[in-house]
Amino acid sequence: MIPALIRCREVPIQNVRLRLATIFLSILCLLSASAFAAAKTQAGKPDVSRFQLENGMEVVVIPDRRAPVVTHMVWYKSGSSNDPPGKSGLAHFLEHLMFKGTKTVPAGEFSSKVAEIGGQENAFTTVDFTVYYQKVSPEALAMVMGYEADRMVNLVLTEAVIEPEKNVVLEERRSRVDSSPGGILGETVAAILYKHHPYGTPIIGWAHEIESLTLEDAMGFYKTHYRPDNAVLVVAGDVEAQQVLELANGTYGKLAPGNGAVPVNPIVEPEPVAARSAEYFDERVTTPSFERFYLVPSYQTAQAGEAEALDLLASILSGSSTARLYRKLIVEDEVATSAGAWFQGASRGQTRFGLYGRPRGKYSVEDVEQAIAGVVDDIIEHGVTQEELDRQRNSLLKSVIFERDSQTTLARLYGTVLSLGGKVEDIHEWPERISAVTVEDINQVARKYLRPHRSVTSYLRPKS
Amino acid sequence: MIPALIRCREVPIQNVRLRLATIFLSILCLLSASAFAAAKTQAGKPDVSRFQLENGMEVVVIPDRRAPVVTHMVWYKSGSSNDPPGKSGLAHFLEHLMFKGTKTVPAGEFSSKVAEIGGQENAFTTVDFTVYYQKVSPEALAMVMGYEADRMVNLVLTEAVIEPEKNVVLEERRSRVDSSPGGILGETVAAILYKHHPYGTPIIGWAHEIESLTLEDAMGFYKTHYRPDNAVLVVAGDVEAQQVLELANGTYGKLAPGNGAVPVNPIVEPEPVAARSAEYFDERVTTPSFERFYLVPSYQTAQAGEAEALDLLASILSGSSTARLYRKLIVEDEVATSAGAWFQGASRGQTRFGLYGRPRGKYSVEDVEQAIAGVVDDIIEHGVTQEELDRQRNSLLKSVIFERDSQTTLARLYGTVLSLGGKVEDIHEWPERISAVTVEDINQVARKYLRPHRSVTSYLRPKS
Repeated sequence: MIPALIRCREVPIQNVRLRLATIFLSILCLLSASAFAAAKTQAGKPDVSRFQLENGMEVVVIPDRRAPVVTHMVWYKSGSSNDPPGKSGLAHFLEHLMFKGTKTVPAGEFSSKVAEIGGQENAFTTVDFTVYYQKVSPEALAMVMGYEADRMVNLVLTEAVIEPEKNVVLEERRSRVDSSPGGILGETVAAILYKHHPYGTPIIGWAHEIESLTLEDAMGFYKTHYRPDNAVLVVAGDVEAQQVLELANGTYGKLAPGNGAVPVNPIVEPEPVAARSAEYFDERVTTPSFERFYLVPSYQTAQAGEAEALDLLASILSGSSTARLYRKLIVEDEVATSAGAWFQGASRGQTRFGLYGRPRGKYSVEDVEQAIAGVVDDIIEHGVTQEELDRQRNSLLKSVIFERDSQTTLARLYGTVLSLGGKVEDIHEWPERISAVTVEDINQVARKYLRPHRSVTSYLRPKS
Repeated sequence: MIPALIRCREVPIQNVRLRLATIFLSILCLLSASAFAAAKTQAGKPDVSRFQLENGMEVVVIPDRRAPVVTHMVWYKSGSSNDPPGKSGLAHFLEHLMFKGTKTVPAGEFSSKVAEIGGQENAFTTVDFTVYYQKVSPEALAMVMGYEADRMVNLVLTEAVIEPEKNVVLEERRSRVDSSPGGILGETVAAILYKHHPYGTPIIGWAHEIESLTLEDAMGFYKTHYRPDNAVLVVAGDVEAQQVLELANGTYGKLAPGNGAVPVNPIVEPEPVAARSAEYFDERVTTPSFERFYLVPSYQTAQAGEAEALDLLASILSGSSTARLYRKLIVEDEVATSAGAWFQGASRGQTRFGLYGRPRGKYSVEDVEQAIAGVVDDIIEHGVTQEELDRQRNSLLKSVIFERDSQTTLARLYGTVLSLGGKVEDIHEWPERISAVTVEDINQVARKYLRPHRSVTSYLRPKS
């Protein structure tokens, strides 16, 4: 299995305040096959508690007693795909503005308090949700919950903070997208893979739309989406569930639920009909590269078993040094310096299955493309074998154990699944569901989804 | 110059009631270079009058005394690009529903009255506007103005009409898009040419979103967009301007202006960065075809003179049998049975410049693509000549005379330009502006806009 950072094809967006705003894949990649298994393998049967406050806020507590540390996260189930038309980047811009103070707390106080006790804080925005978190000692949990609950309803913005923060975001866009040939091409690829769904719009926003964002836009998004009944509280660490519930009731529990129904993004991506491609030339590219993206169902949208089969298909293609792409392109044919596959399982809507490769020496991108297509066609025509399924499944289930090195990863896993509308059981039963996948299940998803008309191929090339 | 119907690459959408709902190019193609010149050439100096009613409604009267006929049109400056997210097809659906009766007029009465006197009626929806019109004898003008003004504010919808009319639209979609390989591919091409702007969404709507439209959606769009200060009245025919103004004041003039600012679509398409393509295979395709679309400025968004230069560039490429594409691909190399270029000048936002060709006999789509690219590259490298500019300009200005055979075409021209935010003078001065275009102007727009990263290439192929 390829480490998460390699499988993630898009770069995280980070601002100067150490806060992290990832785009589509960055955090979600951490959670795909691997992280789903982490909870279960952690202690045989994880002792996770789930509550709902009276105002509708969900609470999850994940015991983790390896160190006297607690991770506190609030997940709003709204992200960049909830940006209004013409206001791309708004969810992410608001994430920045959430550090500007409230009716009762001056700007910077919350961050200072966390820093004073040696804690860490972070925030990030994805297409599906926006997340704020702190990692502190257990004694400080009540303090951060108080501040975070205050920030959920009492944000104060002034015109004085809007323009400077927009410049911060625009600079972030320049450094993370415009200075990265892969980032530039990635925006076009997303836009043409999603013909209609806002997953095709950059999380950070198009530059000209970031420039037009206003205080009213930010407060409008805040009032619409930041509400306890649109949020999930995740606390992982050296804590008792009952204690967390009491603290939650004393902080978040005092907030009124939002008015009316929680806003939902209504967009469903239409089925694809035509194979698409995008080609980008840039002076900064030294080695060309090839990627292919297929529109596929996610764990949220798939029929039973299909997402698990796609996870295993990715493993069979590139989960280890015995996987098909590695063996064929790197060991046998020696046409590529890297090649792989990944499945982005965690997504509220339709998602991506990816293939990629970089040519070695005299070989071209087209040679790599042809070799990868040959491997995929072979699976579609002849299917996978029971032996390789067993081997890659074992490898997948084992390798995820090594990924659960961080409490934050665990907290992110539960936060992601619950924010997308899943249940704790979806996580706990995942290894059983992976174990139930058959050769025929994998052959079926390969034949159903790895079809040209579902794909976008991207070529990143040096400009001569 | 290629006749409008050939230059239009997308099929009109028509429903069973003889009303015409065109998509993007269909009507606009009528108006590009050709129609812009029609008014001027009609009578040397056209005697067009323009007024504004107190409620903000614009009025244009175009005398045309060739026959005792009058064309009456109301243009709402809102079309499918104003559909709310997840509600694609709403503007067009409302166009259908506008024939379902009002508070004072039963369903069918307006249409019957027009039919009784031998008149015609029609309606169509584009990305930028929605238009209702009737062609009647001058005596009936007051009658149709009364009915149309009533329909602007008094529409009554019941649940009983919603589902049946949705089925009409869904059937329209099946017959116009799903049964047409070019229509299917065209939806993908539009979606990937426009990475962000709603011009990438089909006017008729995605099927699953049409299915979800409700009475409330339709009334919401109606109340937001159907208001005199968002409308242009165009009357062409055997009438006096003063008489039309009086009738307008007595009908439309009695309506209250809308509440608040007229809604404007805020979306601006980001600059393209990567060459894109789409490929579609279909059993129903007998001859493959190639098209290339470049994102270019329209008459509304271009710098001074650029749109005129693009119109002439299209003429130099394919405006007559001496134009470059025809000469090279059809006469000299004999690789194609058809080949051409067009510029879609009339658009509120960024628009398209198109190239197309179909291979002859043994030749492939790639042969045609290569030949077309060779012609374009030659212009970019060596430029056009004064001689061919003069010839094609004359041909353009002359040919448009033959296109002004219909009063409706004239009315559409003024309606289009005014609905897009232009002025009557933009139409009247167009021949002078075309006459002022130089060889260097054309070379500049060719070099600036016919660049691979601005393009989407589409391949329509037979499925074997």
